[in-house]
Amino acid sequence: MALAEITDPARPYTRRSFTPLFLEGRAWLARRFADAGLATRIDTAGNLIGRIEGTNPALGVIAIGSHSDTVPAGGRFDGIAGVATGLEIVRALRDAGVRPRHTIEIIDFLAEEPSEYGLSCVGSRGITGSLDDKMLDLREPGGEKLRDALRRVGGDPDQLDLAKRDDIRAFLELHIEQGIVLESQSLDVGVVTSIVGIRRIEIVFQGEADHAGTTPMSLRHDALVAAADTVTSVRRVAEQLAAEGPDYFVATVGILNVDPSASNIVPGRCRLLVDARTTNPALTERFMEIIDRESLAHAAAARVTRAGFTILSDGPPVACDANLRAALRRGARDLGLTETDLPSGAGHDAAFMSRIAPSAMVFVPCRAGKSHAPEEWADRDAIAAGAAVIYQAVREIDQALT
Amino acid sequence: MALAEITDPARPYTRRSFTPLFLEGRAWLARRFADAGLATRIDTAGNLIGRIEGTNPALGVIAIGSHSDTVPAGGRFDGIAGVATGLEIVRALRDAGVRPRHTIEIIDFLAEEPSEYGLSCVGSRGITGSLDDKMLDLREPGGEKLRDALRRVGGDPDQLDLAKRDDIRAFLELHIEQGIVLESQSLDVGVVTSIVGIRRIEIVFQGEADHAGTTPMSLRHDALVAAADTVTSVRRVAEQLAAEGPDYFVATVGILNVDPSASNIVPGRCRLLVDARTTNPALTERFMEIIDRESLAHAAAARVTRAGFTILSDGPPVACDANLRAALRRGARDLGLTETDLPSGAGHDAAFMSRIAPSAMVFVPCRAGKSHAPEEWADRDAIAAGAAVIYQAVREIDQALT
Repeated sequence: MALAEITDPARPYTRRSFTPLFLEGRAWLARRFADAGLATRIDTAGNLIGRIEGTNPALGVIAIGSHSDTVPAGGRFDGIAGVATGLEIVRALRDAGVRPRHTIEIIDFLAEEPSEYGLSCVGSRGITGSLDDKMLDLREPGGEKLRDALRRVGGDPDQLDLAKRDDIRAFLELHIEQGIVLESQSLDVGVVTSIVGIRRIEIVFQGEADHAGTTPMSLRHDALVAAADTVTSVRRVAEQLAAEGPDYFVATVGILNVDPSASNIVPGRCRLLVDARTTNPALTERFMEIIDRESLAHAAAARVTRAGFTILSDGPPVACDANLRAALRRGARDLGLTETDLPSGAGHDAAFMSRIAPSAMVFVPCRAGKSHAPEEWADRDAIAAGAAVIYQAVREIDQALT
Repeated sequence: MALAEITDPARPYTRRSFTPLFLEGRAWLARRFADAGLATRIDTAGNLIGRIEGTNPALGVIAIGSHSDTVPAGGRFDGIAGVATGLEIVRALRDAGVRPRHTIEIIDFLAEEPSEYGLSCVGSRGITGSLDDKMLDLREPGGEKLRDALRRVGGDPDQLDLAKRDDIRAFLELHIEQGIVLESQSLDVGVVTSIVGIRRIEIVFQGEADHAGTTPMSLRHDALVAAADTVTSVRRVAEQLAAEGPDYFVATVGILNVDPSASNIVPGRCRLLVDARTTNPALTERFMEIIDRESLAHAAAARVTRAGFTILSDGPPVACDANLRAALRRGARDLGLTETDLPSGAGHDAAFMSRIAPSAMVFVPCRAGKSHAPEEWADRDAIAAGAAVIYQAVREIDQALT
């Protein structure tokens, strides 16, 4: 709640990565880390890391984390709840007089949400060696490169190798579900089985920007007509694939730009961004094949050209670590909490962390599944229950891993 | 061509009303008016007016005009050709040693194109007493009111009554056709029979801005799905009405805004602007009735609310003055030019001027009917022929009207 007050007042809750507000939030977090006895630093990938040395540092690191940045007009819990959980676990270990054998780290990953630079999960890409030069050259609309923005927040794009880690033995992330499975079944926690793969596809239609008054219907080359028909196709095909089961599939047209966008001009050019997510990549391939064919047909029917059909980004689904999942389920059972396995429809830093360490996630219920919106809400007790499950798992792992 | 050089260099040809470029263009025009011996002023409605007193001023005014503003990335002729025609006619009268009995005025109407304030024909509304307080309170996206913008360009929103005219005996406007009738039939000029009525309808769909990854297809309230289906309906119904004949009908969705417009958020709100034009208002009523019904059905199917279905503006079709049309036809015949009657699919300042004075228009052919686009083109000789027809008509009217 204290972090939530650090927001663009005109558009709560907005604390976008790389902004002065984001840095203000991080300064607040760094003070809380220090208060809890953590040694605090920014790594070269721009992640804020708090660390408490284990009694046997040679055993390596158990890391807990998430992110403190938000989408525009987002919520108070997405990401933040996971960072606060790490902080609370360190405090709880201290209050219980427990000195873990493993070193414990809390990580506030940089820019998990899609930033103005067009990239998400910047910090978890960096820490796993997945942030390349092409990404660092991405620019925000004002022209600043991501590499320069990274420097501004305390990272060092020229020494990203220093951020890469091989000492993390387990990574755990708590997050609000951002869906309605837990709430609708009155369950306390979800143990994530896998994180969806996300493919982003850009489709461009090129027609002709004619006068809307003097161009007869029969002579038009209206790019929006083809784009609208493609939105309808995306919806229909996604509904069909989702209904087949048992795999998870969703697809969304979240951005549709019309050019020139004037009431008295026939749209000359339209650009759609399609976001397709699944636990089974074969579904995305089937989706692509149908949308490819149908968008071409829609272009032909509207007498326009389909000028682009491009995969902008493509991340595969990631399975969570079986041993960590088992530890989380035992933790829940020991605490008398109800739990279920479920997939994550959202991408998370844990998906990147799984490339370098066994990783797993706990979901906690949130009201009506709302997220990326000001009305996003998770009860304090619900977050506490999820944090307690991770605390139990950390205690178990700290003993079991040698 | 000189005015065309006064453009946003990044987006030729752009000289939108109320911008510094627009004022630069007007300063250039005012110098040309003065060079031609015209007394030049800005009326309280923001129109640039050049005037040459008649030998019998009590006979009233013959006015010739159009507009010098453009749409974004528009052309070099739409509007400008009509203002240049007025200027050239005054020069030709002077060169021929003719002193008209009537006072002659050239009018560069303010903001004929839809401006950032959401209103077209600002100047011709003002001069005809059709610019009301509600319109003056319209704001551009930056928040400035139209009334303040009007002040910036030399008008006076508090004294609009001073702009209202009852002394104009005839209004004549030359314009490029913005269609392909004249070119396809190799005709020199078109004498406009009537100007289409234009109705602008705003349709708003309100859904829920959910997470695009975690919200299953079956639980979505996607405003863009309803909007896309409505674009398809507008296209289909407009094609049917146009194909019925003989009346002219076109309808266009030129603007479609998606909110929040992020690739990973299900669209929560969509706004469409529909532009419907006809020479027969009954067709617009039939169109509205079907789109009203179908957009409600699309909203229901997408589980969203149709939060708005509003007529933003509604101008009836306007018949051009029969006597002036006859004078224009005689002028063409006397010059050995070929002509035809035809309707105007575009709105024009002449439609407002017909409320206070007999008004008529001459169309000249333009290449491939292209307009509102950089490739808009009319040959110099084609414009000269149209200007000559108006010159002949002015000479005849000046003698005939007493």
